[in-house]
Formats: sequence, C-alpha cells, structure tokens
Amino acid sequence: MAQRHLDPTDPTTAGPAEPVTPDALVDYLRAQATEFLRALRLHRESGTGTAHTGSSPGEEPVDAARALRHSARRITGTLHTFRPLLDPSWSETLHPELAWLSGTLAREHAYAARLERLLMALQRLSGAPPFPKQAAAGPGNAGPRSHPAPTPDRSNLTVGAAKAGALLERQLTLARTRSHSAALQALGSSRFHAVADNVAVLASEVPLIPAATTTPTDLRPLAAAAHERLCAAVAALPLLTAGHPYNAEALVHGLSLDPAPHPQDAPWHHVRLLLRLRRYAHELLEGDTARDGLGGRMAAAGAALNRHRDASEAATAAAAAARTPRIAPATAYALGVLHADQRHEVEAARFAFQQSWEMKTVSTR
Amino acid sequence: MAQRHLDPTDPTTAGPAEPVTPDALVDYLRAQATEFLRALRLHRESGTGTAHTGSSPGEEPVDAARALRHSARRITGTLHTFRPLLDPSWSETLHPELAWLSGTLAREHAYAARLERLLMALQRLSGAPPFPKQAAAGPGNAGPRSHPAPTPDRSNLTVGAAKAGALLERQLTLARTRSHSAALQALGSSRFHAVADNVAVLASEVPLIPAATTTPTDLRPLAAAAHERLCAAVAALPLLTAGHPYNAEALVHGLSLDPAPHPQDAPWHHVRLLLRLRRYAHELLEGDTARDGLGGRMAAAGAALNRHRDASEAATAAAAAARTPRIAPATAYALGVLHADQRHEVEAARFAFQQSWEMKTVSTR
Repeated sequence: MAQRHLDPTDPTTAGPAEPVTPDALVDYLRAQATEFLRALRLHRESGTGTAHTGSSPGEEPVDAARALRHSARRITGTLHTFRPLLDPSWSETLHPELAWLSGTLAREHAYAARLERLLMALQRLSGAPPFPKQAAAGPGNAGPRSHPAPTPDRSNLTVGAAKAGALLERQLTLARTRSHSAALQALGSSRFHAVADNVAVLASEVPLIPAATTTPTDLRPLAAAAHERLCAAVAALPLLTAGHPYNAEALVHGLSLDPAPHPQDAPWHHVRLLLRLRRYAHELLEGDTARDGLGGRMAAAGAALNRHRDASEAATAAAAAARTPRIAPATAYALGVLHADQRHEVEAARFAFQQSWEMKTVSTR
Repeated sequence: MAQRHLDPTDPTTAGPAEPVTPDALVDYLRAQATEFLRALRLHRESGTGTAHTGSSPGEEPVDAARALRHSARRITGTLHTFRPLLDPSWSETLHPELAWLSGTLAREHAYAARLERLLMALQRLSGAPPFPKQAAAGPGNAGPRSHPAPTPDRSNLTVGAAKAGALLERQLTLARTRSHSAALQALGSSRFHAVADNVAVLASEVPLIPAATTTPTDLRPLAAAAHERLCAAVAALPLLTAGHPYNAEALVHGLSLDPAPHPQDAPWHHVRLLLRLRRYAHELLEGDTARDGLGGRMAAAGAALNRHRDASEAATAAAAAARTPRIAPATAYALGVLHADQRHEVEAARFAFQQSWEMKTVSTR
C-alpha cells in the first residue's frame, strides 16, 4: 500500500516566494483585535444579561459570543506561534489571560453542543427520525448552532432512552447555566477589563520587539515551525491502527475502572490544537485559507478532530450520568449504549482524520 | 471506484470441463452418512450421559457432537440442492428430520460460544488482557473450542462488568444446560432412531430417481443454481452502505422499543445459509475445497457471516439480560456498553464480508 503524506515541509513552499514581513503580523493582530472589540460591543448591547435558557431574543448573543471566541483564539494562537517577534513581557501577560477568557466563553457553548449531540444520538439509536434542525446541520457536525437545546420528540423513545435523555438534559443544562453565569461574571470582572484594555491597545499598536522592525525579518520560518510541530505530533499518533476500520480501539477502556476521560484521546486533542495553530499561521501568511494548497484536506482533518473531541466529551458525559445514584436500570442501560456509541464515533473520527491526512493513491491487498 | 465482483457465473467454469455424473452425489452422501454414523457411535461410547458442566473427561464428546452436526448439515444441504435427482418422498421425509436434529445439536454449542464471546468482550472492554485461551484461538473466531466456559479473571473488572458477566454466565449456562438435556433427550428418542436408521440406509444405498441412472445426467446445473441463488441474495444486501466504514447502521435500533432480534440482520443470516449450501455443492463437485478458485474468498466471506451471526445473537443476549428485573444500574450500564459493542461487531462483520465479496482493485477518491 503506497501512501502519499501531506507534504511535511515548510508551508511557505506553497505560498509566495518572497519573505513575509512583520507587517503581516501587525495587520493580522490588529484585525483580530478590532474584531474582538466589535464582538464585545455587540455582545454587551444585545442583552448579555439574559439567561439563554430557551427564550433568547434572537441569534445575536450567540453570534457575538462565537465571534469573541473566534478572535480570542486567533490572537492567542498568533501570540504563541510568533512569540519571538513580540515584546515578551507583554505577550506573556496577555497570552494566559486570553486563554482564560476563551476557555470561559467556550464552556457554555460546549455544554449546549454536547447535550444536542447526545440527544440526537438517543434519537438515532431509537430508530427515530432525526430532529429537523439536525437534518439541516448535517450529521456529526458540531458546527454553528443556536443556544436553545432541541426539544426531542420522546414518543419514539423507550422508557430508558427517554429517561436517559431527561437526565442528560438536566445535568448538562445545569452545567450550561453555571457556565453562562461564570461567563457573565467573567465579562464583568476587572480581570476581563484588563484583557479588553490590552486588546484595545493591540488594535492600534502591536508591540513588536525592536529587532523585528530594524532588521529584515521573515515570518515564514515561524509558520513553518508550527507546521512541523503539527507533523511531528501526527507522526506520533497510532495512524496505522486508526486506518483499519473497526479496530475497536476507542472502546477498549469502555468499562474500565478509571472514570477519567480516556488517556488515549489526549494525543488527538493535542494534534487538534496544533492543527488550529497551523491554520491561524497560514491565515496570517496567506490572507485567506482559499490559497492554502492543503486547505481542503487540512479543513477535513480539523473537522474530524473536532468531531473526535466532541464525541469523546459526550461519551464521558454519558458515563458520568450513569454514575448518578438511584437511576433506573433501563436508564443506565441506555446510557451504556450511548457511551459505546459515542466511543465508536471517536474511533470513526480517527479513521476520518487518517483518511484526510494520508491520501491513499493505491490500495491493493 | 472500480470493483470486480466474484464471478457470478456457473461455478463449474472453474471446475472440470466434463459433466459430473450422479455417482459423485452418491459418493458424497454415502461418505457423509458414514461419517454421521461414526460420530454417533463415538458420541455414544464417550459418555453422552455425563453433563458437560466443566468436568467432561476429554474432548471426545465435543468432537463427536461437532462431527455429527458437520455431517448432518452436509446431508441436509445436499438433499436441498440436489433434490430433483433424489427420490422425493424419501428426501422430503429425511430433510426436516435432519434439520431438526442439527438444530437441536447446535444449540448447546451456540450458548457456550455466545457466553465465551460475551465474557471475552467484557474483559476487552475493561482494558484487561484477554484469556490465554482466546490468545490461541485468535480474535473474533468462534471456532472449535472445548465445552467448559472460560473462567474470567474478574479482578480487573468494574463492579458493573463483573456483575454483568455473572448474570450472563448464569443465564447462558442455564440455557446451555437445558439445551444439553434436550440434545440428550433427542438422541434417545424414537424420532432420532428413525433418522439414524434412515441415514444408515443412506450409507449403503442412495435413493436416486430412476431417470438419474437411466439417462445422462449432469450435477453441475444444480450446483450452478445454488451459486446463483447466493449471488442474487448478496445482490439484495446493502453492500454499498456496508462498504463505508463506521456507517452506524447496525446500532440504529440499539434502543428501539422492539425487543426482537434486529430485522436488518435477517438477509445477512440468509446469505450465510446460501453460502454454506454453495460450499457443500462445491465440495461434492470438486472433492475438496482447495480446488475452488473462489475458495479462499468464499471462506473469508463465510467466516465474516459466522461472526455476524454470533455478534448479532450475543448483542441480543446482552439486551435480554438487561431486562432482568431488579439488576443494579451498574450492571445494566455494562450490558448497554456490551450490547452496543456487539452491534458494532455486527457492522464490522458486514464490512469484512463486503471486502471479501467485492475485491477492490482501484480505490480513488
């Protein structure tokens, strides 16, 4: 079986031949900082104070929150990849604060998405038609969605599946509400105001190190290093196993004594983050992802790893719900089926990643 | 994607050019009848009367029972495929009686194999090392094994997995013991003695229709018809879906209200039987399977469908155990994980069958 790998060389070989000057870094950070401030204003104007439990007055708070996370992640990633060119004391202060912020903002969305994924899986496992909303969003796609959790039609579910759904809804809605409060609290904190002030400065003036402006500097080696870190991490993944369908690896600790999230998932989560860093670096260099020769396959690989992360966390949530005291055996059984189903989603996502990453040209056996 | 299918034409194209005379049918039936009588004698001599619950005095009863099933299946299959050449009143009497006998004899073995499969899956899902015996038998292989159920090391299991294993062991051992008694009762019945007498006649004289001996007769068209029935049934299978790994089809009714075995499995079980009939017809024509041009892939396809059947029945047994009243939630959860795991085995077996059946020469996308 001959396989051609994604070219692990400097990504700039696919880009322009000329060096990329620090101006591109300045422009990118300014643009992201401006977007951050715009999203923040939108978020404040459009009723941050209302709880999102089903009756939000439109999509704006969701879009604003997503835009905030979107730009915060890009600034954080860029600070990381191009750290040598940025004023160290400044970037080392801002970096963890932005990471804290995007983490806090992401949590509410993650719980909502997890609940939706699990309720949809329960519908699917019951042989019931999927929610209309899911039909539009496409299968396995944890992409943009509005906050209110879907209201499943429970008439097609067994008692166990319906009870499992209700239990998950209770637990994950509680977690989401807590995350919402925590996000609101964070957005009103002095810690957040310090971050916002820092980003506001960034929108007008990016603190480069003096050498970056006085001597000829090329951004491409730093972007290439991000690409290489990605390739090295991918090389350490068990891709040979992942490429064999139905390898039953993901469920190998499905009933193990350790209630912690599966340690086997961690390297994949790590690659997901490195893939994101590589994407941001490429955006910065190329202006848009359309000009990335590897863009389509990188996007597919990234989507597979998002699905991997979502399924992994959903499986953990199902297992955690099954440890709720005094649940009915039928509920526990449905949660067991659901857990295994999501672990197989994990395995399927690894297979999809392997297929995107390693382009098979010949497959003979 | 170009695919080359197993040649669905007359299987005799791969065999000798000359017609195959009814002598081959006579020889094959005589040989199988002789083997049946030998196995029966062995079975009676080696302590049929002892219950096989852990302390059988050797492998003989198991081997004898297997040999009995083996030859009974071959006689039944041959009566079916070559029915037009055999005395109708004789074959129509013997056929259902032999089917009854092989069904009765197979049940005890099936329960033992099912229990072993489920206990091994529980070990695997607990991240524990497999039984030493399983390491020798090979994964997913429900092949020859001795009767005593494996004694799992439960120290690595969660409470839920251990309790689920104990529950399954109790239920399936009971079912096996009942089947053992039923088989003993059958072997002592006058109904069985009538079958044995009929087979004894067959060992010396095969009742062909007069025309089969007076006019030139070729067995090959009847074997070809068996092959064509197989190909038609395979063509009706959802092979396109099965060929897409992780299609999540097999678990689609994992939590449905219907407690009956999955109706989606039935066409696959049917193909399994047709594949077996085709194999016996080929054995008869060619003398041995080694000369079958398609033998290796037919064997792989058959093994995949055996695994499909075993996993399907194991999944049903896990679901049935979960409906036991008053079980602990942890037990029910483990049974849910186990059920889903076995349904994924079903899906994996379909994929393996599709891969064996359709030889992929080029796969580009």
